[in-house]
Amino acid sequence: MSQAAQSFASDNVAPVAPEVLAAIGRANEGTVHSYGEDPVTERLQAVAREAFGTPLSIYPVATGTAANALALACMAPPHGAIYCHDQAHVNSDECGAPEIYTAGAKLIGLSSPDGKLTAAQLAAPLAHAREMGVHHVQPAAVSISQATEWGTAYSPAEVAALAAAAHEAGLGLHMDGARLGNALAHLGCTAAEGTWRAGVDVLSFGGTKNGALAAEAVLFFDPELAAGFERRRKRAGQLWSKLRYLSAQLLALLEDGLWLRHARHANALAAQLAAGLAREGLQLAQPVQANEVFAHFPAGLSASLRARGFEFYDWPGAAQDAVPLVRLVTRYDQRPEQVEALLAAIRSA
Amino acid sequence: MSQAAQSFASDNVAPVAPEVLAAIGRANEGTVHSYGEDPVTERLQAVAREAFGTPLSIYPVATGTAANALALACMAPPHGAIYCHDQAHVNSDECGAPEIYTAGAKLIGLSSPDGKLTAAQLAAPLAHAREMGVHHVQPAAVSISQATEWGTAYSPAEVAALAAAAHEAGLGLHMDGARLGNALAHLGCTAAEGTWRAGVDVLSFGGTKNGALAAEAVLFFDPELAAGFERRRKRAGQLWSKLRYLSAQLLALLEDGLWLRHARHANALAAQLAAGLAREGLQLAQPVQANEVFAHFPAGLSASLRARGFEFYDWPGAAQDAVPLVRLVTRYDQRPEQVEALLAAIRSA
Amino acid sequence: MSQAAQSFASDNVAPVAPEVLAAIGRANEGTVHSYGEDPVTERLQAVAREAFGTPLSIYPVATGTAANALALACMAPPHGAIYCHDQAHVNSDECGAPEIYTAGAKLIGLSSPDGKLTAAQLAAPLAHAREMGVHHVQPAAVSISQATEWGTAYSPAEVAALAAAAHEAGLGLHMDGARLGNALAHLGCTAAEGTWRAGVDVLSFGGTKNGALAAEAVLFFDPELAAGFERRRKRAGQLWSKLRYLSAQLLALLEDGLWLRHARHANALAAQLAAGLAREGLQLAQPVQANEVFAHFPAGLSASLRARGFEFYDWPGAAQDAVPLVRLVTRYDQRPEQVEALLAAIRSA
Amino acid sequence: MSQAAQSFASDNVAPVAPEVLAAIGRANEGTVHSYGEDPVTERLQAVAREAFGTPLSIYPVATGTAANALALACMAPPHGAIYCHDQAHVNSDECGAPEIYTAGAKLIGLSSPDGKLTAAQLAAPLAHAREMGVHHVQPAAVSISQATEWGTAYSPAEVAALAAAAHEAGLGLHMDGARLGNALAHLGCTAAEGTWRAGVDVLSFGGTKNGALAAEAVLFFDPELAAGFERRRKRAGQLWSKLRYLSAQLLALLEDGLWLRHARHANALAAQLAAGLAREGLQLAQPVQANEVFAHFPAGLSASLRARGFEFYDWPGAAQDAVPLVRLVTRYDQRPEQVEALLAAIRSA
Repeated sequence: MSQAAQSFASDNVAPVAPEVLAAIGRANEGTVHSYGEDPVTERLQAVAREAFGTPLSIYPVATGTAANALALACMAPPHGAIYCHDQAHVNSDECGAPEIYTAGAKLIGLSSPDGKLTAAQLAAPLAHAREMGVHHVQPAAVSISQATEWGTAYSPAEVAALAAAAHEAGLGLHMDGARLGNALAHLGCTAAEGTWRAGVDVLSFGGTKNGALAAEAVLFFDPELAAGFERRRKRAGQLWSKLRYLSAQLLALLEDGLWLRHARHANALAAQLAAGLAREGLQLAQPVQANEVFAHFPAGLSASLRARGFEFYDWPGAAQDAVPLVRLVTRYDQRPEQVEALLAAIRSA
Repeated sequence: MSQAAQSFASDNVAPVAPEVLAAIGRANEGTVHSYGEDPVTERLQAVAREAFGTPLSIYPVATGTAANALALACMAPPHGAIYCHDQAHVNSDECGAPEIYTAGAKLIGLSSPDGKLTAAQLAAPLAHAREMGVHHVQPAAVSISQATEWGTAYSPAEVAALAAAAHEAGLGLHMDGARLGNALAHLGCTAAEGTWRAGVDVLSFGGTKNGALAAEAVLFFDPELAAGFERRRKRAGQLWSKLRYLSAQLLALLEDGLWLRHARHANALAAQLAAGLAREGLQLAQPVQANEVFAHFPAGLSASLRARGFEFYDWPGAAQDAVPLVRLVTRYDQRPEQVEALLAAIRSA
Repeated sequence: MSQAAQSFASDNVAPVAPEVLAAIGRANEGTVHSYGEDPVTERLQAVAREAFGTPLSIYPVATGTAANALALACMAPPHGAIYCHDQAHVNSDECGAPEIYTAGAKLIGLSSPDGKLTAAQLAAPLAHAREMGVHHVQPAAVSISQATEWGTAYSPAEVAALAAAAHEAGLGLHMDGARLGNALAHLGCTAAEGTWRAGVDVLSFGGTKNGALAAEAVLFFDPELAAGFERRRKRAGQLWSKLRYLSAQLLALLEDGLWLRHARHANALAAQLAAGLAREGLQLAQPVQANEVFAHFPAGLSASLRARGFEFYDWPGAAQDAVPLVRLVTRYDQRPEQVEALLAAIRSA
Repeated sequence: MSQAAQSFASDNVAPVAPEVLAAIGRANEGTVHSYGEDPVTERLQAVAREAFGTPLSIYPVATGTAANALALACMAPPHGAIYCHDQAHVNSDECGAPEIYTAGAKLIGLSSPDGKLTAAQLAAPLAHAREMGVHHVQPAAVSISQATEWGTAYSPAEVAALAAAAHEAGLGLHMDGARLGNALAHLGCTAAEGTWRAGVDVLSFGGTKNGALAAEAVLFFDPELAAGFERRRKRAGQLWSKLRYLSAQLLALLEDGLWLRHARHANALAAQLAAGLAREGLQLAQPVQANEVFAHFPAGLSASLRARGFEFYDWPGAAQDAVPLVRLVTRYDQRPEQVEALLAAIRSA
């Protein structure tokens, strides 16, 4: 697995953080009630409430796709519309998971160059829906990614503006927080400020990209929206019988701020990488506000780096791009030397 | 958690087997490709093929409900019928998971006192479906549990008779093997003899009840049936990004027969328990062919045992039962002394 | 088509009543707004409210399967349970329509010899659901057929007892009234007494079996339950653009009691038939309380009648039946002589 | 209803053509077998085969939404992608019908100013899907509208180019022919040339907009794709028991070319209207190739015309439009004087 140490492909290539593995080990004593009636899961509720500073409900699941799709299924009827960025993970990378979980609600993708939606963008599609009446799906929710798929972060004010527009039209606001920690680390705001205080109703909280084995969660800041969640999770095959092992992972991340330390570390490496690329004269496609760097690499450069064992994805860029786009992801488990090694390889290429 | 040591409630209250936890630890080195393109998952394919003696395809998922529902979704169209025992886990305990995954296929429950279906039972509903034509769902699959929800095991000949009837009518045969190891340990036959050689087309292989953290798998003995499985798994939110940790668990169980040793151990405890109950004059409701004991306990006895910290479930019995029914489950992690402690408590009650 | 004049196969083999066809013709003048914003549909609302004596909402659709499935989709979540007779049309003859419209809710069939459910039958499955919690689908609705699939009719008191049990447990009561007119004609009670006053929440009102071309309706006695109905109807492809032609059919049936005159006529023929069969020494399997006669015909008799052009269905009887069962349906458009012709053929056979 | 005579709102405000009503009346004799086993439906098969010059299968349904959604459900799996114009009826005006019928397949909308797709537009999304693998829905079908939602018509060569691109990538080609007659009348080609000879696999054939009461059909040029159609139609509540009355409508349209005469008539009125608008100095937004005219009307003009009883829809135009857009639809039942009346009102406004 050594060459993979040079991977900048994704957060998901990383191993599990030792703290998370240790927490699983600690949970592994004796018998406990199954399906979440265990002390670890109980403690997770308390710790999550403290981390977010509000009496939320938290439900652990194993994948981010499940977290997003279950969250949206609680927010939109089968005949509902969910507005999101057209390149949002829920719209593009989940093979129709929101569609199966919501029983056919429609994701309506809106465009922007930086992965962010604005309140102004909602006006036209909402007006269209109103005019169309029963012929059109019913506006039900807005879903945003934090950080976005382009590695950018919404400020609390931007989230609040979107939330206000959504709420005024009777829609809920969902946040796909697969990289919430990275966004918060960049913004320097609290979890509360970045989510429910800014108007987020339901949050998909990401753990796996941030050091967990497989652990995400759905957080309802409005408990009324959670009605039906538990049966939806069960019928989706997402309720673990040995739930303590999901909860233990999330606990390990949340309990003493490990998730934010991991995120800060990954963000710092991304900043280091971005600065280095700029020094080499390579153009960045997006501001770096999390742990993803989008840069224009000449095809020869990419080939040369891959020949040396570096891994990263080509990324669909704009039609007018002269130089191809790549995505480089930094991780909690990487060291600055690994970023330097990549930069050195770029220099020598 | 100490009182839970006296739990006979379910296989799921158990912790993770040390061998499984160790395997997770061993998989936790360095970066690997995500979503299953890793060496652990690759090795799982080879080991599973060896364990079952046939070139199958194996797909790990985290829960038995997911394994069953995904398997059935590959076997039945939305307008299909799946015949199963009316108390089958898929029909009664999965909150409609087969329905969401198949997009509405209908489970048609058939009755029998011991949890087993017979080929003869299929004749009438299949004839009815033929007569009804498009007004009725289309017969598509038969699903059986091995061991059954009543702790009984189908012999290979019984499976083969069902498979022959199903196949003759154009239906596939699915086996919910959440306790397959226990059934095989009882039957003394190989995994091959108990499954594909007897005509099983698709198998849900259980790990979690048998010492895993959260690990099940869908095995296709007929690779054609697996078409579409991978996208179905993804859109169900059941594809782990760090799939190596699912695969490692299954590897640990399969690699050197740990799953069968665990199953034999639990079965032996169930036999010990059943013999003890009989000695105390308590009536068994079913033959004990796996790790579950169904016995008639006077209400006072159950109350007394629970007062001492023993845990087990009341179970819906037959309408004519004079003495209430309880279910007692034994596990890989229990010791004979724990069974003796329960029997001693019964004697003194 | 002459031999079909001897058909006792189904209500659906009948042509459209002249009054209904005339009403379609009358509606066929000039342009009107589409999708239900037309004067005919407006008038239907008023007439239906008068016929049922309550401020209901009525939504026309073209088939009974659509009416039932849309009604149930408004009453049960995807993770819901709907209790019905196991031979109910919704459970057995609609190829999974409730499942697609509800997005996978589960129909739980209960047995009885006469097609009717009782409040007492609900107790056990509801208790089971409570015990199982999230592992089991959530009790949401009871659906009964009036008249039943066995040609029997619930008295208002029987409906009220079921409604009370359902409501007490938080479930709604749906009535599949494909043959509601026949049941009311037999019971001699008003539409109000037979439906909402007895506790029915949502009614599928049948027109097609009773002289319409293709016209059924969903009636909500509780307007709150209708939330979402209109979009559900649209996304099901059940919203006619030229809705006036659906509404005109229902108007023709409801406006001056034509539906009840038709039903009384068909019932009278069924009574005539039943009396004649009894005179011939043939055994009836059910009391005749609508327009269906279930009788035991020796196989030779059925063959002989069919050879003379009579049409009727063999029907699945009880396992212990010595003589096969057949179903004979009488219709609004038949004449007493046609019943006599059948009886004469039986005598001479 | 008199003011509605000035309606240019939609094809659907029209009454039923007398020939269609007469055909319903002729079908209304005696009893026939239900659910399509009747002589009218049998004859429809033959007449449709002759009209299209190929051994197709034709299945009548009552609405265009149902026809489209059922067609697409036979072409795409739940995890499939269907490429269409982003303003296509299936994507925008059916409240998620394709999503419910396909069980969650994803419609991916592509943009163009005239409502038409080109083969070149498919390349990028298909390449994206290939790269994304299981994370993305699986390309399954292309759906085009003929005539388009912008009143334009694909030439047979344009259809053929799209079909070639779709087929090469393993996708089927669906045509929403709600206004197929209008397109063919404009193109001057045969039904065969405009559909299957150009590569269309499945056609939604529109009758309701063209003089029927409620009658559309799904035509499979490739009989293999129809597998499962009949049960899908039944479980959707789209199978009429008295199917003869659906078939009779379609027969009346197809039998002697009435559908094409109607379409030519409506097209001629649209051409008359377009020419008149141009004479008045009003700008057309699209070429007029069917029975729809898209024109830029100053807001005052629209208000003035509406005050005089004329009806038509405002239409969402391009962001840069200075003058608002309206849609005017002409119909089989209108007379040239009605178009002249509108033009006269414009002149005097």
